[in-house]
Amino acid sequence: MPHHTHTLTVETTGRGMIDLTRRITGWVGRTGISTGLLTVFCRHTSASLTINENAAEAVQRDLLAWLDRIAPEGGDYEHDEEGPDDMPAHLKAALTGVSLAIPVIAGTPALGTWQGVFLVEHRARPHSREIVLHLSGDLSGA
Amino acid sequence: MPHHTHTLTVETTGRGMIDLTRRITGWVGRTGISTGLLTVFCRHTSASLTINENAAEAVQRDLLAWLDRIAPEGGDYEHDEEGPDDMPAHLKAALTGVSLAIPVIAGTPALGTWQGVFLVEHRARPHSREIVLHLSGDLSGA
Amino acid sequence: MPHHTHTLTVETTGRGMIDLTRRITGWVGRTGISTGLLTVFCRHTSASLTINENAAEAVQRDLLAWLDRIAPEGGDYEHDEEGPDDMPAHLKAALTGVSLAIPVIAGTPALGTWQGVFLVEHRARPHSREIVLHLSGDLSGA
Repeated sequence: MPHHTHTLTVETTGRGMIDLTRRITGWVGRTGISTGLLTVFCRHTSASLTINENAAEAVQRDLLAWLDRIAPEGGDYEHDEEGPDDMPAHLKAALTGVSLAIPVIAGTPALGTWQGVFLVEHRARPHSREIVLHLSGDLSGA
Repeated sequence: MPHHTHTLTVETTGRGMIDLTRRITGWVGRTGISTGLLTVFCRHTSASLTINENAAEAVQRDLLAWLDRIAPEGGDYEHDEEGPDDMPAHLKAALTGVSLAIPVIAGTPALGTWQGVFLVEHRARPHSREIVLHLSGDLSGA
Repeated sequence: MPHHTHTLTVETTGRGMIDLTRRITGWVGRTGISTGLLTVFCRHTSASLTINENAAEAVQRDLLAWLDRIAPEGGDYEHDEEGPDDMPAHLKAALTGVSLAIPVIAGTPALGTWQGVFLVEHRARPHSREIVLHLSGDLSGA
């Protein structure tokens, strides 16, 4: 039952949601682990992770707009030297979180039909983001 | 150190919180694992998980009312074809999250005295919800 | 691949954020685990955990002020017998969460350069808080 890790590098193009489900599921499949636990971890404080609807893109736009309302720019923040989008980005990351734990069954993450794993970029400019994957479990046929 | 998984099916009766602590703790006990890690995962995007006060039911009502204020119906959402409660449900799920990781010590999840594990149904109508449990650890006496 | 657990006791001095990164990283190092999974779990419903900026203290003050705005005291809560700061504390704990999963690589949690692990005390008065750590993984050189 080895512990596997892998780092995904994701180039973002500014504020938005990026569906990582295929890349994550592909890596899990290649490890040969049948039953286990997958962890997805975002190494940043102004980008974060969420599991949400994978079908309707309007859901993603509504989620981003809601985050903008709940953690608005121009919110009279003390920390503003890195630009007006920086402190809202930290708040949005605190709200959605940076780590996800997902059981693996039959060689694949046990996501529901409508669930996708998304990186949410909260900064206005493009960034290079590192997502660390961890998987422990039993090998197929073991 | 095997990896155990189990799926709980929970029938909800519309918006509300359902305490899953007993069902989860019972399953953990039956595996015989003494020290390990429990993961609780909700396979949906309009229901979610939270750990909160297990004693005062007023806390649950206040939490649900607060979620309604923070992610209100009628919020001018682009995604509205599945009913006025659908997009708020996705937002509430993003806020509370769908996965929980809980250490297991002495054969039981290391929850605090006042902590309960709750499924939160965000849709107005009843739904059948799947909660996947994962547990890895050392067997008692091993 | 044993499962390690450890409980940190943290004395808080009222509302605020306490950086636990050094204590957690130190414990992980002492286990000798090289590659694995760390879980951090807060056993309370009015204190919680977040990963956020570790450099600028203004970020912490802005985060606390934002939590106060989003879950204000005097919010017409039904549950108010434990003081005006109690129900807001439960809401803030639901928002930020009480469990974190962090991959361990090369003997240390794979946190980003600017990431710190913080306990957030939401109550006005000092409290003694228990944080349970869990670590499973492969020993160095194994």
